[in-house]
Amino acid sequence: MSRIPVTILGATGTVGQRFVRRLARHPSFEIAHLTASERKAGMRYADACDWRLEGESWAGLGDRVLELCDPGRAFSPIVFSALDCEVALSVEPAFARAGSLVFSNASAFRMEEDIPLIVPELNADHLELLAFQRRKRGWTGGIVCNPNCTTVVLLGALGPLHRAFGAQAVFAVSMQALSGAGYPGVSSIDATANVVPFIRGEEDKVETEARKILGLLGPEGIAEAGIEISASCNRVPVLEGHTIAASMRLTGSPSPADLVAALEAFVPDTAGLGLYSAPGLFLQVRREADRPQPRRDVEEDGGMRIQVGRVRSCPILGSKLVVLGHNTERGAAGASVLNAELALSRGMV
Amino acid sequence: MSRIPVTILGATGTVGQRFVRRLARHPSFEIAHLTASERKAGMRYADACDWRLEGESWAGLGDRVLELCDPGRAFSPIVFSALDCEVALSVEPAFARAGSLVFSNASAFRMEEDIPLIVPELNADHLELLAFQRRKRGWTGGIVCNPNCTTVVLLGALGPLHRAFGAQAVFAVSMQALSGAGYPGVSSIDATANVVPFIRGEEDKVETEARKILGLLGPEGIAEAGIEISASCNRVPVLEGHTIAASMRLTGSPSPADLVAALEAFVPDTAGLGLYSAPGLFLQVRREADRPQPRRDVEEDGGMRIQVGRVRSCPILGSKLVVLGHNTERGAAGASVLNAELALSRGMV
Amino acid sequence: MSRIPVTILGATGTVGQRFVRRLARHPSFEIAHLTASERKAGMRYADACDWRLEGESWAGLGDRVLELCDPGRAFSPIVFSALDCEVALSVEPAFARAGSLVFSNASAFRMEEDIPLIVPELNADHLELLAFQRRKRGWTGGIVCNPNCTTVVLLGALGPLHRAFGAQAVFAVSMQALSGAGYPGVSSIDATANVVPFIRGEEDKVETEARKILGLLGPEGIAEAGIEISASCNRVPVLEGHTIAASMRLTGSPSPADLVAALEAFVPDTAGLGLYSAPGLFLQVRREADRPQPRRDVEEDGGMRIQVGRVRSCPILGSKLVVLGHNTERGAAGASVLNAELALSRGMV
Amino acid sequence: MSRIPVTILGATGTVGQRFVRRLARHPSFEIAHLTASERKAGMRYADACDWRLEGESWAGLGDRVLELCDPGRAFSPIVFSALDCEVALSVEPAFARAGSLVFSNASAFRMEEDIPLIVPELNADHLELLAFQRRKRGWTGGIVCNPNCTTVVLLGALGPLHRAFGAQAVFAVSMQALSGAGYPGVSSIDATANVVPFIRGEEDKVETEARKILGLLGPEGIAEAGIEISASCNRVPVLEGHTIAASMRLTGSPSPADLVAALEAFVPDTAGLGLYSAPGLFLQVRREADRPQPRRDVEEDGGMRIQVGRVRSCPILGSKLVVLGHNTERGAAGASVLNAELALSRGMV
Repeated sequence: MSRIPVTILGATGTVGQRFVRRLARHPSFEIAHLTASERKAGMRYADACDWRLEGESWAGLGDRVLELCDPGRAFSPIVFSALDCEVALSVEPAFARAGSLVFSNASAFRMEEDIPLIVPELNADHLELLAFQRRKRGWTGGIVCNPNCTTVVLLGALGPLHRAFGAQAVFAVSMQALSGAGYPGVSSIDATANVVPFIRGEEDKVETEARKILGLLGPEGIAEAGIEISASCNRVPVLEGHTIAASMRLTGSPSPADLVAALEAFVPDTAGLGLYSAPGLFLQVRREADRPQPRRDVEEDGGMRIQVGRVRSCPILGSKLVVLGHNTERGAAGASVLNAELALSRGMV
Repeated sequence: MSRIPVTILGATGTVGQRFVRRLARHPSFEIAHLTASERKAGMRYADACDWRLEGESWAGLGDRVLELCDPGRAFSPIVFSALDCEVALSVEPAFARAGSLVFSNASAFRMEEDIPLIVPELNADHLELLAFQRRKRGWTGGIVCNPNCTTVVLLGALGPLHRAFGAQAVFAVSMQALSGAGYPGVSSIDATANVVPFIRGEEDKVETEARKILGLLGPEGIAEAGIEISASCNRVPVLEGHTIAASMRLTGSPSPADLVAALEAFVPDTAGLGLYSAPGLFLQVRREADRPQPRRDVEEDGGMRIQVGRVRSCPILGSKLVVLGHNTERGAAGASVLNAELALSRGMV
Repeated sequence: MSRIPVTILGATGTVGQRFVRRLARHPSFEIAHLTASERKAGMRYADACDWRLEGESWAGLGDRVLELCDPGRAFSPIVFSALDCEVALSVEPAFARAGSLVFSNASAFRMEEDIPLIVPELNADHLELLAFQRRKRGWTGGIVCNPNCTTVVLLGALGPLHRAFGAQAVFAVSMQALSGAGYPGVSSIDATANVVPFIRGEEDKVETEARKILGLLGPEGIAEAGIEISASCNRVPVLEGHTIAASMRLTGSPSPADLVAALEAFVPDTAGLGLYSAPGLFLQVRREADRPQPRRDVEEDGGMRIQVGRVRSCPILGSKLVVLGHNTERGAAGASVLNAELALSRGMV
Repeated sequence: MSRIPVTILGATGTVGQRFVRRLARHPSFEIAHLTASERKAGMRYADACDWRLEGESWAGLGDRVLELCDPGRAFSPIVFSALDCEVALSVEPAFARAGSLVFSNASAFRMEEDIPLIVPELNADHLELLAFQRRKRGWTGGIVCNPNCTTVVLLGALGPLHRAFGAQAVFAVSMQALSGAGYPGVSSIDATANVVPFIRGEEDKVETEARKILGLLGPEGIAEAGIEISASCNRVPVLEGHTIAASMRLTGSPSPADLVAALEAFVPDTAGLGLYSAPGLFLQVRREADRPQPRRDVEEDGGMRIQVGRVRSCPILGSKLVVLGHNTERGAAGASVLNAELALSRGMV
């Protein structure tokens, strides 16, 4: 079977590089175009891009010539977008209009009512919004978003628990990795031996995106889940992996043992689909007193596994736990690719 | 006026060293004895102790000979204890029985009903428990404790707000400095570029100590404050300074502006006493979006100032903020010394 | 073909864990015994050992019961030793006497004239010392050492250049990873945002071991290479990988281009042997201006590849470069295992 | 006596901020103008500048309005320049022409034959070049430079030893702090748990500047010192303080004890001048096995003290040691201010 040509928008940044690495040897997709800003278009990928990842530099594509972010030049049926929010606002619709299905890591369209915001294991059915989106916008393609990197980590625990018990309120205090800010991102002068207790826009994203993802898809679109969420986002000197200390009020006041059982019994929407980028294990509950830890645990299953630990009682909301996930794989590049694989498995490509 | 002789128990550890540095030139106290474990007793302080602080090594006391932790050898009317909990259990009562007033940083006796657990700015009146303690235990001296380092940082914000509004429930997620574990403490293999989401015993200490300190002293002793507290404690790669992301339910649902006004209007119990180690400013509310930060801010006022930032609304509990304090000064050595100054100013020494 | 039973001495430490991970699925060796100190002997491996590595915990051997470091209990024809120097002094000879061939990472016997100190790519022929050793000591087994972790990294560049040109003098300033000190090793209080310009015993090891390894084996034993070596060893806050800034005086004053050519043309003694743990590439010369870097590059080829960069002229000694290697693989566990594979391929086991 | 008005060029950067903090309460100088780039000129200092230092924000000058880097707007008899090299190339001469004496931290003019490159303790007499400079360039003011931050740290040890013995050759491998790259400078993604073995242009600066500074001023200008210098410069995750591992060939092969004696007997050129920013002790020889360490030691004497440790024999060049200095004080802001104080004390202002 021949592979589907794909375009990577913004291929030189850190998320873009992760797209390239994930897609360079993908069984269903084939990189047809790498795009970059006007300043870099026309350059060899190896010349334009300081490769920041482990493994083969430029994933063997160093000789590819970068193209403009323009569907007239770089059209593919499937597009992965690692663009900044502002650029995404104009470029992603241009591709969608031209017929591409855009899998976007940008925040630009996530909260639009007709844009699916997908975590494949949790709300695969929300992909159905695409039909509505196409009607509404007159596009032949479309845009499918993955959530913010902190949102998806929180949802790794919250989603299964909400499904099992119904969640009413959630506190989430994040300790976020430096890579979440891109490259060069956070200055080493700010990061070294320090905590920065603020990440612009992040708390709002977590609070709103989670409700949409856990919402129910009905004939009127998505009815957001009625969960109160309070997020506090902090930057800590960690390279990869967002750690979240969370407390939750769940219906029926389940015990910690109930939570562990529910988390371990959770069956993701993707079960049995054989999606290539899906982790062997979506959700792991750790028993050690002091795990998960980002530096030690975050790379499990190519960064696509969510890990929960310290499940215990909370004197205020009832349940308390720690959840860890990989912010630039599970929360960015891997998320978009998994969304595309889901769409493909549903025959939407 | 002549200075009061004091003994420092456990002078070679990191808190012990801070005691030595704070007391070497103190206007009211004069270091009479430095003690250490049997293994080190008899050695010169400079030989037994790897000095880990800035400033003059051994605070100029490198030639002092270390003594045993025994009131028969190292008695002083005032004693500062940097002992580990287990050792404190036997040594501190021995000194109290011998007539010393022991200001202890250990957790051994903090939650005993007759032991004052003091943050001078917040519950100076709890010192009155001493009379009860002496009657009950038949001691001529006594033990006065300061709280756990995380508790005192949280209380820096919670205490004034509880006094202004009445607190009902508090979430506290700490990001704690490495120095809180002493020396050598946390292995660099665990700490580097990592978060360890667990500190043994810490969450329980925060939850129980805070209620005692904010309790009311009555004829029956202290009636603990009826505040629900949920703590989650994490170790992050920071050298000094515990940062806490906190949310609170306060009576009357005050606005963030109300909170800031109350925090800035707070008058500590120590106002006007001229205590030598009291900070110029007990509590600072910062307006910058991304402060306080431990590495940049924690040393203000010799580490004795508490700093609050990001005062904002919480969708669940009503109020949300960040609070920072110095764990080994405000939360350890400086705390004990300030307690002693308070006792002295009240004529209890 | 059946696999040879092996014993791992000191299986719970960080090097011991790396031995376990490397040998758990080795094609030629089969772990028969895991040993530990008296305090831990009798415990399950999983209970006695805090697993610190990525990948499957305890490499699947968590249920193995730890044994004493005693050939009467834990004999195997091949033994890997991750013991501390002092313990190694008595335990390793006991196994050698009992007939085991001990591949040791300890420094205890490295400089003994009859003990082969091996980097398989550089001085495979020194294994012949074993015959001399057995005669001299009356052992049926023997001891084979790998060098100190800093020595082997330096030799990765120096060895090939010495063979190509003859080295006369070498400056080596190391920036060494925290893992080199074991676990818990360096306190995070010392390591964080700091350089410690001293590592006990390290400079002497580098200066003496390198001369032995590059020496010529003759009928009288090894004639040490007549190279002046000056080492300065520093600890920096890096997790894995020793980086060395080196300058060398080579015979004939070769140009930087000559050096690069010689490094890339180097044929290791192990070429064609198909040793299982040998790296795909023993020695890589990097062209980027700012590589190799430990965090980014050290894991290449399972940590067994040496990487050289910044080959340039030195105004004093003629040649200057940077060399990087993995201190706990290429410099410890991987080194011993590769030595054993070499001995096996030579029919010495 | 009234204070001399001064202008700070580039007041918003990290070195500029250190100038402001040093000069805000200086006994001889009074800040008359703060300048910035066109984009920031006209703004309040507090609005244009994210204050990155400890102590009072903006040193109390937050309300000052930033001016253009133009002598027509911001003339003072004394000017401190924290400009980038390229901007300095045109701006510094403009001020010198207008009559200002410019004390520059930029590298733009350091190696010009008529520009004094000064470390006050070592070559105060080189200030005499100013007369030659004025004649040659027709300026009424002038430019006085301080060296690169790594050069000055090396010279703190090398200068006194050269004076005592005569230096012939010097190896210097630096482990440099992040702050040396300015703000935002090094990305935290590059810096965290890593070594970057390259700093653009740095090695060349160290090798050339040191020879000029240690040169002899004669009627023909400066005859550079005939010392071979080989520098290797590395970035390590340290906040402030460059640590250098150095080896030296000194005439007469002095012993380590001779070196220590010479270092401790060194009398700086500034002795007795009472310069306000001069350290209490210019040069300290440390006896501890593992000091100096940047995080623990670098702030001594306001960052103006040089610290030497580990003085020992070198098998190749004869002498080996470690030297530490503060790169943004002794190597930048403090250096320029001390140069100005020296010029003032010599009646050259």
